[in-house]
Amino acid sequence: MLDIILLGSGGGLPLPNRYLSSIVLGYKGRKILIDCGEGTQVAMREFHTGFKSLDIICITHIHGDHLFGLPGLLSTMGNSERVDPITIIGPPGIYDAVKGLTLTIYLPYHINIIEVQKDTLEIISTKNGLTLSTDLSKKGDISVSTIRLDHSADCIGYSFYINRKPAFLKENAINLGIPQNLWGRLQYGEDVQYEGKLYNHKMVLGHQRPGIKVSITTDTRPTEDIPEFIENSDLFICEGTYGDHQDQNKAIVNKHMTFEEAAVLAKKGNVDQLLLTHFSPAVDHPMDYIENAKSIFENTELGHDGLKFTLKFKD
Amino acid sequence: MLDIILLGSGGGLPLPNRYLSSIVLGYKGRKILIDCGEGTQVAMREFHTGFKSLDIICITHIHGDHLFGLPGLLSTMGNSERVDPITIIGPPGIYDAVKGLTLTIYLPYHINIIEVQKDTLEIISTKNGLTLSTDLSKKGDISVSTIRLDHSADCIGYSFYINRKPAFLKENAINLGIPQNLWGRLQYGEDVQYEGKLYNHKMVLGHQRPGIKVSITTDTRPTEDIPEFIENSDLFICEGTYGDHQDQNKAIVNKHMTFEEAAVLAKKGNVDQLLLTHFSPAVDHPMDYIENAKSIFENTELGHDGLKFTLKFKD
Repeated sequence: MLDIILLGSGGGLPLPNRYLSSIVLGYKGRKILIDCGEGTQVAMREFHTGFKSLDIICITHIHGDHLFGLPGLLSTMGNSERVDPITIIGPPGIYDAVKGLTLTIYLPYHINIIEVQKDTLEIISTKNGLTLSTDLSKKGDISVSTIRLDHSADCIGYSFYINRKPAFLKENAINLGIPQNLWGRLQYGEDVQYEGKLYNHKMVLGHQRPGIKVSITTDTRPTEDIPEFIENSDLFICEGTYGDHQDQNKAIVNKHMTFEEAAVLAKKGNVDQLLLTHFSPAVDHPMDYIENAKSIFENTELGHDGLKFTLKFKD
Repeated sequence: MLDIILLGSGGGLPLPNRYLSSIVLGYKGRKILIDCGEGTQVAMREFHTGFKSLDIICITHIHGDHLFGLPGLLSTMGNSERVDPITIIGPPGIYDAVKGLTLTIYLPYHINIIEVQKDTLEIISTKNGLTLSTDLSKKGDISVSTIRLDHSADCIGYSFYINRKPAFLKENAINLGIPQNLWGRLQYGEDVQYEGKLYNHKMVLGHQRPGIKVSITTDTRPTEDIPEFIENSDLFICEGTYGDHQDQNKAIVNKHMTFEEAAVLAKKGNVDQLLLTHFSPAVDHPMDYIENAKSIFENTELGHDGLKFTLKFKD
């Protein structure tokens, strides 16, 4: 199960009535934040996401509306007695950007800053929270894929795939007389030696089951690679900076998308649902333009501040 | 005349229903901003102060709630086609802090960063806006005094004195046959040579008249020097982080003040009006505690986001 909260739906500038477009993913009580514009900590407070359970922050690109909330959020986390390290992932340049923004702050915890060099990162859920796996040979709880986007700054799209454990075949375990205290480890794919016997996890595990996929592309022009990257996403969160067809040229010049362009990507990528966000400050009423997306991809939703989704594994 | 807008009334953290405690001073259509916490640009938008007319930013101290709105505000000003330089004044360390916060931003204008070393700065109003005077021998339009405060970081209090020109004695000018095209320069204290005659400004200027004084002390414990620094202010804007007497110990430990302590300073300084601001996030309803100030200094007002004052020269 994955909880998703769209903290804000704005792009470019924080507005009195619209927070900037950051996203919280909640998994097993811990949190991943995607982007952190000015005011993100205020939205987190308003929508009760909590600060203490935040383990990883993914930054798409080094533009203020995706970044300038970091010093405030990190300070607030420090004042909340955090001592566990936090990981910040971003494009090349993120290391210097975070160092600059946090120059004046004393933080009682360590920040791991990772400039994304490779396509996939594995996140594991431990009793201490979500951390990046150092065992690259094995799938983590969440596989994070990245893609280079086409924006006016070096920009990364993220796809989060919640890996689902195969079903545990309880009947097999009983029939084979496997002691119940070993079931948990076997379910996690471990082979267990116990009282002289080797129990192979395959004895009690069913077939692979589909996980949950959420993809996020903001800010960018449409690219050829996006449809494959977002393929079969349960939820595709995409920038829709401009709603009106007449703003097509602005979208091209400013390296953004129209609602229509986002919908075309959603259709090509065969996603379940499209969530549009990152509306231009000039777009007062995104609802006026929703048909520009829906006429191409019916299952389109418009983002608004505090919008929540819960995605469950499909049976 | 001086316009004052209290953009926010909160301290420590930006909250969904309370902006951080920044102040805009408006003089002859141009603006001075005091402090710039996260969300200050949002409050400026909400309360229609404008961005283009901002010339000087005074930072009291290098704590996030007074500083972390800078990168966003400076970016927004850059996107508003600003090319004129802006001046940022602050305590020692402000240079590095601003450099760090703006590391990732391209700004189309220059930032003059001034670490306050001396007690007084003179601001002059020109057709290009408000700038610091380089002629230290002469009073500017606004004289800015500073004072070292007692906080957990190196912190500066600011006092702004709007110097009032002496009255222009029109009758004298007429009786003395002074050509009308010279009146403006004479009124500005200039002596003018014209058609072989020297006109001394004293011929047409009356006595000195009192200006307008606004003093700001946040964040700080009460100090012995504050009453003299704020003396006879038309408006004394002071931190009142805690309202309740029971929080006196917190005020001491965290280097802040209670409402009562601020009121004692206002009384000692013989100011006209006290404006309390910078309320702790734990103080939901400052109004519950206003009597703690009013019982000592009657003309106390509680800050709230967007509160406006207009101070006029006294006749």
